Amino acid sequence: MPHMTILTETDLRKIVPLDRDAIACVESAFEALATKAVAMPPILRLDIPEYRGEVDVKTAFIPGVEGFAIKISPGFFDNPKIGLPSVNGMMVLLNSRTGLVEALLLDNGYLTDVRTAAAGAVAARHLARSDATVAAVFGAGVQARLQLEALALVRPIREARIWARDGEKAREAARSLQARLGIDVTAESDPARALHGADIIVTTTPASEPVLRAEWLEPGQHITAMGSDAEHKNEIDPAIIARAEPYIADRLSQTRRLGELHHAIAAGLIAPEAHFAELGDIISGRAAGRPSPQAITLADLTGTGVQDTAIASLACDRAKRAGIGTIFES
Amino acid sequence: MPHMTILTETDLRKIVPLDRDAIACVESAFEALATKAVAMPPILRLDIPEYRGEVDVKTAFIPGVEGFAIKISPGFFDNPKIGLPSVNGMMVLLNSRTGLVEALLLDNGYLTDVRTAAAGAVAARHLARSDATVAAVFGAGVQARLQLEALALVRPIREARIWARDGEKAREAARSLQARLGIDVTAESDPARALHGADIIVTTTPASEPVLRAEWLEPGQHITAMGSDAEHKNEIDPAIIARAEPYIADRLSQTRRLGELHHAIAAGLIAPEAHFAELGDIISGRAAGRPSPQAITLADLTGTGVQDTAIASLACDRAKRAGIGTIFES
Repeated sequence: MPHMTILTETDLRKIVPLDRDAIACVESAFEALATKAVAMPPILRLDIPEYRGEVDVKTAFIPGVEGFAIKISPGFFDNPKIGLPSVNGMMVLLNSRTGLVEALLLDNGYLTDVRTAAAGAVAARHLARSDATVAAVFGAGVQARLQLEALALVRPIREARIWARDGEKAREAARSLQARLGIDVTAESDPARALHGADIIVTTTPASEPVLRAEWLEPGQHITAMGSDAEHKNEIDPAIIARAEPYIADRLSQTRRLGELHHAIAAGLIAPEAHFAELGDIISGRAAGRPSPQAITLADLTGTGVQDTAIASLACDRAKRAGIGTIFES
Repeated sequence: MPHMTILTETDLRKIVPLDRDAIACVESAFEALATKAVAMPPILRLDIPEYRGEVDVKTAFIPGVEGFAIKISPGFFDNPKIGLPSVNGMMVLLNSRTGLVEALLLDNGYLTDVRTAAAGAVAARHLARSDATVAAVFGAGVQARLQLEALALVRPIREARIWARDGEKAREAARSLQARLGIDVTAESDPARALHGADIIVTTTPASEPVLRAEWLEPGQHITAMGSDAEHKNEIDPAIIARAEPYIADRLSQTRRLGELHHAIAAGLIAPEAHFAELGDIISGRAAGRPSPQAITLADLTGTGVQDTAIASLACDRAKRAGIGTIFES
């Protein structure tokens, strides 16, 4: 009888906090993407426009990793009207040698939140100045909060500003982050002022028009653009892509299609086939990171299956060691 | 707390037998594909050549159907060496309005077997002569057996011949099918002889070179080619595609890439953009089926997400009504 482990969101929140281990786990995944024969097919995407719904399915096999995840991420944007969260989902971990289902991770999107925030920290670790102390976050959702938490794990962040279209949400996020992180966090109603003096800027909004203008930037800043994971999303002024040194992608084939790069290509500022390094190239030393303290660096993150396989494997290893989860025979 | 129903293979074998309801369910799915605004993205495919493994993920949303399935189908072809089946898998049923996971169908591939066999019956019902009594099946695996069972539900089959590369397997399949169906079933070592006088021919082998030659065919025969669901698979002499009237696809965009049609295009016998009706067009009356008792008809079936959504919905409806399954809160 095949058996599998079922882990719930409650289990997973206990065993996979957003911490340095989670960041290291995601960093290794990106390094593998650059250095190993990873298999990572294009995202499967199903759209259900009549219910404002969309589902992404991601997967990746990393050689040497015992399991691979298949992640199902639904986003149904009318859900809040009926008291349900927009974003849900689960992961299935399959054995890399046999294809048998090893575990069902009923995380309701929690592991995606963690691995996405961890990717932001990995980008900052390799591209932001090591003396970065001031962060600006555009957006006030779950991911905005986690991004700041993750940054604080890799850089000596002492101050943060939150800008969001909805000022009340920004103030609420600032209050709770200040309490949680013990640093000075303020809500800022003017996005340009939020950026002034910031060392690291993270955008994590659902914007479909740029919220970050090129003329606001200052030398030495690092930007991580997290929000764009679909063709219509766009947070960053395309002129910034052309100016960044370096611009890096989590996966170039994806950012050309779904990320901020896509809009810079559409605007004619970047050639469609222009080559850029990926995050894994920087981590593994195959490409150079920040060239000088004055450079403006930009990481364009759309989300990759290797992150899912890495975080799901971490979760299952920890669950096994801790004896957590329900064994289900089928 | 979100909750979901977990159904095991044992549950599913009980509530979803291969019967006329399963055939009707798959027939409706194909009809919807032709007549409704179905969303069915291309298959996600992950290959793990170092372990001779592959995984297909399929999905489809059918308007008016409350749930949609995401099916994970791994095939790991070294598994039999360690006593495990090659093919496994599961389905996840999500709510079409909210994207919430409603059910996990841990079927180990059983529902795929049923919906695939049902598709063969649907093709025969619409293309084979109504007086078809003799069937020839190429292949002796699980699907070969189920195809004959399914045919017997839609045509007055009195006699069947089984041909397979491995003669012992063919004899064993013939023995067990004769006992199960109560008709005359014989193993035939010569494929041409197996076809002689057959009204319906089903190929369901893993062949990568044609096993069915054009010169063996006789007027009035119907062929269903089930085996090809990947680029390298090929059961049917490309000359048969050119000669069939009509050739029909389950999904033309897939058979051009993965089906028997793909090889006829590669051989230069069919133009890459040539248009053919799909099974749903015939079911819904949008395209004509068999033009005469003498025509040789061919259905090229590669497997579609609408079949998975249909059979998973049937399973969940029946489980709910029968109170079967484990409720899991997460």
